[in-house]
Amino acid sequence: MMRTVLLRRTLALALLLSAAPLATRAQTVPSATDSANIRRIYNEALAQGQSYENLRYLTGQIGARLSGSPQAAQAVQWGQTTMEKLGLDRVYLQEVMVPHWVRGKPEKASIRGDKGKGVSLNVAALGGSVGTGGKLRAGVVEVQSLAELAALPEARVKGKFVFFNRPMNPLYVETGQAYGEAGDQRRSGAAAAAKRGAVGALVRSLTLAHDDLPHTGTMSYQEGVTQVPAAALSTMGADELSQLLKADSKLTVELEMSCQTLPDVKSYNVVGEIKGSKYPDQIITVGGHLDSWDLGQGAHDDGTGCVQSMEALRLLKATGLRPERTVRAVLFMNEENGNRGGLKYAELAKASNENHLAAIESDGGGFTPRGFNIEAAPSVVRKIVAWQPLFAPYGSGLLAPGHAGTDIGPLKGQAKALVGYDCDSQRYFDIHHTAADTFDKVNRRELELGGASMAALVYLLSKYGL
Amino acid sequence: MMRTVLLRRTLALALLLSAAPLATRAQTVPSATDSANIRRIYNEALAQGQSYENLRYLTGQIGARLSGSPQAAQAVQWGQTTMEKLGLDRVYLQEVMVPHWVRGKPEKASIRGDKGKGVSLNVAALGGSVGTGGKLRAGVVEVQSLAELAALPEARVKGKFVFFNRPMNPLYVETGQAYGEAGDQRRSGAAAAAKRGAVGALVRSLTLAHDDLPHTGTMSYQEGVTQVPAAALSTMGADELSQLLKADSKLTVELEMSCQTLPDVKSYNVVGEIKGSKYPDQIITVGGHLDSWDLGQGAHDDGTGCVQSMEALRLLKATGLRPERTVRAVLFMNEENGNRGGLKYAELAKASNENHLAAIESDGGGFTPRGFNIEAAPSVVRKIVAWQPLFAPYGSGLLAPGHAGTDIGPLKGQAKALVGYDCDSQRYFDIHHTAADTFDKVNRRELELGGASMAALVYLLSKYGL
Repeated sequence: MMRTVLLRRTLALALLLSAAPLATRAQTVPSATDSANIRRIYNEALAQGQSYENLRYLTGQIGARLSGSPQAAQAVQWGQTTMEKLGLDRVYLQEVMVPHWVRGKPEKASIRGDKGKGVSLNVAALGGSVGTGGKLRAGVVEVQSLAELAALPEARVKGKFVFFNRPMNPLYVETGQAYGEAGDQRRSGAAAAAKRGAVGALVRSLTLAHDDLPHTGTMSYQEGVTQVPAAALSTMGADELSQLLKADSKLTVELEMSCQTLPDVKSYNVVGEIKGSKYPDQIITVGGHLDSWDLGQGAHDDGTGCVQSMEALRLLKATGLRPERTVRAVLFMNEENGNRGGLKYAELAKASNENHLAAIESDGGGFTPRGFNIEAAPSVVRKIVAWQPLFAPYGSGLLAPGHAGTDIGPLKGQAKALVGYDCDSQRYFDIHHTAADTFDKVNRRELELGGASMAALVYLLSKYGL
Repeated sequence: MMRTVLLRRTLALALLLSAAPLATRAQTVPSATDSANIRRIYNEALAQGQSYENLRYLTGQIGARLSGSPQAAQAVQWGQTTMEKLGLDRVYLQEVMVPHWVRGKPEKASIRGDKGKGVSLNVAALGGSVGTGGKLRAGVVEVQSLAELAALPEARVKGKFVFFNRPMNPLYVETGQAYGEAGDQRRSGAAAAAKRGAVGALVRSLTLAHDDLPHTGTMSYQEGVTQVPAAALSTMGADELSQLLKADSKLTVELEMSCQTLPDVKSYNVVGEIKGSKYPDQIITVGGHLDSWDLGQGAHDDGTGCVQSMEALRLLKATGLRPERTVRAVLFMNEENGNRGGLKYAELAKASNENHLAAIESDGGGFTPRGFNIEAAPSVVRKIVAWQPLFAPYGSGLLAPGHAGTDIGPLKGQAKALVGYDCDSQRYFDIHHTAADTFDKVNRRELELGGASMAALVYLLSKYGL
């Protein structure tokens, strides 16, 4: 017990000491003015926020917008027009070639038992998968992991579907952690299966919900390995298949998918900018990704991140908080299946020798804010964490090291800090990459609070630098 | 700037000092064992939690259960049976007489302009309201507050509906604060209107959403003041009425409601108990309310609190953490329109000279946990706040003074601490007291995390006392 008491004292002492270096860096210390300005940002968002109505348009009038699709092109136009209406200093496009994968006709799948009676399965082709070229029927071997597959005798796998059935771990409080750990099956399962002579991969959907919705998502092949089709099963479908396999290991699955990859298409990142009043050469980027999967409406993934990023700039304008450093909203193209937009943005920034102070991304849904995940040197992390008291009153005071985001990932080494907007993660994977990722799942206040949190961070970064 | 730095140092120092008294109270200091035990509680809830399936039954098979209704009686039986299945040491009922108000036929309301063309309004009688006795048609006077009404000349009010149209304040981050501030119109509007000679009250629904759902809720009359009917308008309906009034101050509203109050009915609180292994006379109560409004299914209000309270006891049993003090789950009857169950519970506790250590209530919905609001002496608050590090990993580490709950309110002075489970409040008032408070609005993980948070607090209270 005494040890615990000492630990608590040590912790308090550490807090005391960690506050000390701030005395030498007065510019990073929040003031009462900052507190009042941030209150104005949140007030504007809560009373007059435009994220929600912008999202209603994007999801309802344009809808799903996979890279290369006509809807993705419409979304680019919409993003440009919407930012032009904000009266920014500059709105422009960055050209980027993107993959063009199409799902084709709705997929069909069924379980065939010895007696030939079909149990139909809701499936979704994984993004990037080849089609089946008509009906593909084969036996099934179930595994929990890539390692288990690698250890199986080739005869057990050859000519079959490999069925990857490891569920996401429900014990993590942060659902993203479980998603990260279970994702290898989806990303690399088909290639691993083909290497062992399998004809296809069936992958349990990456979700903690138990329902009949299949979740798509990106997968990739390996150079020199046969490309075999890969489909996601709903969690209910996966459980059913697993159970039937126990009773009849010789059952077959019949799969029909007409998806294919077409030639790359020209597309764009959309960029809007407010020039910094004092240090225009220092850039703070805030973004989400404009593309989405082709199921649903791409509401939480990542329409919310796009409208929040634009809203962050609008909030600065509406509150008259002209930033001292340049602030950019970026709607990245092609996060879902290539990250070409993120790569292009970093490439152009490097080529122009741009000085990126920080890049913020919102790509974890538009749920109630919690805070920010920071990728930066420890001294830079400390500066941002020192702003915690300014965020705490809004429930967004969880500032800690963590993964920032895919689109801004390529800026690593170019920007002093990469920052991921962190919001409540419990509902996200229930709808992620499915037909259920629709506008009605988004709550207006949760969404607007997120945009305000991002604007508040941009405000502080633009005032104090890093 | 220096002042801010000093403030931060002072804060750190205060933290240091606040940790000091713990040295003299080793029993309140959490240990590594506590951390591990709490992890087990959350693991059990996340992997095998039963709150969600219990709630599915309560909302789907029984549904809305206003005090005095046959469904409320069914809910009592269900609560008793469900707790008996948990293998508790004792399950029993506490008899209590409750009000019996019935809505009657669906309400009808419309706006009548000069040209007699009706615009229909979605309305819901407020709970406790008298009916209209057929169609009631009258002019309308709009006010923003009880004070504004009191200042109006009587001639402006006499023979009319008073239309209370003050919206909930969207600027509060905590929606409950806005609800509290706007609630006087609903609770006291009809009596205040009748005092000035009005024939009825029309009240803007207490919600931050802009939609066509009317929100019911309790209201009361005053001794010696005429009882006039009171109805809630949806926020869209209220906005429309307000706009039409501006164009035509002589418009009328026609209202038809057949609600009435019947004689009191015998009902029950449902109580389940695990006897404390060391201090059986010290009682920790954890509860929600079993009754709900008659619209919707009473899912978030307060089916979630009921299933979480029972789950808290189940989690202790399932993890083998036998409490040292007695723990009770209480499903209170009649929170919504009388609080007779809460009053009866406190009355019986006093009559039996029971020693209540703490009472915990969950009645803010089943959303993602944030922490607990504590009503207790400052020294007691400090003891509970010292457990913060044990809750932080689960996102429920916001422990602070605040309103605990209505059902447990009457225990004030009898229990050392009243504690309210605090969860994300953004979505709650969108559905509160409406037809939309249904099971599909509840997320399984959010709900189960809440039950685990409550169980963890019960575990600590039962181990360390206060």
